Amino acid sequence: MSDARQYFDLPSPFAMKRGGSLQGARIAYETWGSLNAAQDNAVLILTGLSPSAHAASNAEDPSHGWWEGMLGPGKAIDTRRWFVICVNSLGSDKGSTCPASLDPATGETYRLNFPDLSLEDVANAAQALVKSLGIEQLACLIGCSMGGMSALGYMVLHPGGVRTHISVDTAPQAQPFAIAIRSLQREAIRLDPSWHGGQYGDQSYPDIGMSIARKLGVITYRSAMEWNGRFARIRLDPEQREEQPFGFEFQVESYLESHARRFVRTFDPNSYLYLSRASDWFDMAEYGNGNVMEGLQRIRVEQALVIGVSTDILFPLEQQEQIAEGLQAAGAKVEFVALDSPQGHDAFLVDIENYSRAIGGFLARI
Amino acid sequence: MSDARQYFDLPSPFAMKRGGSLQGARIAYETWGSLNAAQDNAVLILTGLSPSAHAASNAEDPSHGWWEGMLGPGKAIDTRRWFVICVNSLGSDKGSTCPASLDPATGETYRLNFPDLSLEDVANAAQALVKSLGIEQLACLIGCSMGGMSALGYMVLHPGGVRTHISVDTAPQAQPFAIAIRSLQREAIRLDPSWHGGQYGDQSYPDIGMSIARKLGVITYRSAMEWNGRFARIRLDPEQREEQPFGFEFQVESYLESHARRFVRTFDPNSYLYLSRASDWFDMAEYGNGNVMEGLQRIRVEQALVIGVSTDILFPLEQQEQIAEGLQAAGAKVEFVALDSPQGHDAFLVDIENYSRAIGGFLARI
Repeated sequence: MSDARQYFDLPSPFAMKRGGSLQGARIAYETWGSLNAAQDNAVLILTGLSPSAHAASNAEDPSHGWWEGMLGPGKAIDTRRWFVICVNSLGSDKGSTCPASLDPATGETYRLNFPDLSLEDVANAAQALVKSLGIEQLACLIGCSMGGMSALGYMVLHPGGVRTHISVDTAPQAQPFAIAIRSLQREAIRLDPSWHGGQYGDQSYPDIGMSIARKLGVITYRSAMEWNGRFARIRLDPEQREEQPFGFEFQVESYLESHARRFVRTFDPNSYLYLSRASDWFDMAEYGNGNVMEGLQRIRVEQALVIGVSTDILFPLEQQEQIAEGLQAAGAKVEFVALDSPQGHDAFLVDIENYSRAIGGFLARI
Repeated sequence: MSDARQYFDLPSPFAMKRGGSLQGARIAYETWGSLNAAQDNAVLILTGLSPSAHAASNAEDPSHGWWEGMLGPGKAIDTRRWFVICVNSLGSDKGSTCPASLDPATGETYRLNFPDLSLEDVANAAQALVKSLGIEQLACLIGCSMGGMSALGYMVLHPGGVRTHISVDTAPQAQPFAIAIRSLQREAIRLDPSWHGGQYGDQSYPDIGMSIARKLGVITYRSAMEWNGRFARIRLDPEQREEQPFGFEFQVESYLESHARRFVRTFDPNSYLYLSRASDWFDMAEYGNGNVMEGLQRIRVEQALVIGVSTDILFPLEQQEQIAEGLQAAGAKVEFVALDSPQGHDAFLVDIENYSRAIGGFLARI
């Protein structure tokens, strides 16, 4: 096993849940550590909406990954013990086939001709990779945020495929507040005249829509409490201010702007739309005759750790409790950890100390 | 006193807090009930960002007002006892001078030549009206949402002008979360190419920016809890759906859209920008050597009722507690009411039963 970004060619055609299929599709992934002879030490990480498969630095790519503090030798997800795989979601533009990819049938970029994407498709693509690596059962499946929903889909669709599960800041279905936020993000992009019905190019690109979508994301990924301590009402220095009417004046505005600038041209807008909608569609109730708890009870794992944070407004703690209750009712031994980290939904990326303690402790006991 | 919308000509020039002045400016207001001979039964209501002075129906305008359930004969704000005045904020476009008004100096619409607007200007304009009506001291000053901040400004700038105060779902200063939301709303408008630096017209109008701003407003005025019960994941009927890619699919999306449609062309975008920024600027700490509590302690009233709601994410309950503590430390007899209404910040417009009980009870005791 090498430690660089690798590509896995999905079985072709790859059937999509809501109809249609992909020809010659692939997903990007990275690995850390080594698969043991018994092939029972594999950990799969499914990510949130925007991260790549580069969860942590490795030999070929020493740059810091999005979960650098969590993953590595001696860390909570200890790569001396575990063979860790992180997948770039199908439909995401960090190496996996997505709406910005070429459609081999036409030689043109898919754009809106990409078939409807669901998180079950993300899960199935990841599972196909796991199987191809000779892994019958994951020692642990970890899902963060959107990846937590993909993980639930993975487990309900592939019984026996997962021994233990770690659910991080996620939900068994999107609630209307989260749907409203994501719908507005999508609207900001698709109503940007430069989106051109998905036919944008480098010269005419929905920068404004993407910027608004990202800022709204950052606002809802964080918490008011954190910002009170961090930004309060601190003003920008005069030389940092914009010259235009109603330009930025407070540090919090400049913070949002810098986040947006880093995002706007590094994430394909159509791919964002597809993944965002897939998050709204996901619903464990589909697997339980319209009932979320029944759907969760169809999942079979030995043990699970469910973590959430009280300051998360996008995936509120009650939804983590639901997951914990559902998995427990299904027979799993479940640990439920409710953190008070001030950082909101993003706490799993920031409060490494508390998340490490919970995740490292759980993995040490399985 | 008549009961119709009336106009009060402000002293000219009317000096603005941050510099500049208005010539020939006016504010629109409505009244209910009669001022008694002692002139000690006047209640002034300062409104949130978007409402007009039409708080309730009256003889000349029988249409329902924005606080219809609260205000009238026999209601919590009993117009048989109180002479009630509601003012359309200076800078708002519901009859008061605002950026959409003609600048008498040029004969052109002010647009961005309107001077910087602060909530202290809103307060001073309202106070000038009160004085012109022969009222030395208000029996009660009621401020809701943005109007609650204007009310704090009124009281700190006009000592002795207010006997009792009712503070509804407001804050002594904008916190960074609220600033971030409002900044993003302003950005949606000013980055809409049809805003044209404030020079829009009926043919090219920032509909998209205004729609996004309004939807973001409605999302933050409400609460996730309410929507779970109200919308859950209910889908629109197929015939209600839009035909376009990524069009609305869930009821909550259609709810936001209907709110936005009612707002977009009924509120002047430049006026919205001015009032929104004024809300960010307002800070009681300015009156207390940089300290909010010290600023609040400069306010002198006999009694106060401070109401907030635990589900408000824009004006969180801790900020109402701050107001209550500050007024109490200044010597007022303060009642603090923390409600659990599920409707979020907008609870004062919806949960009339609980707000009536608190406000009616307080007014009955003064």
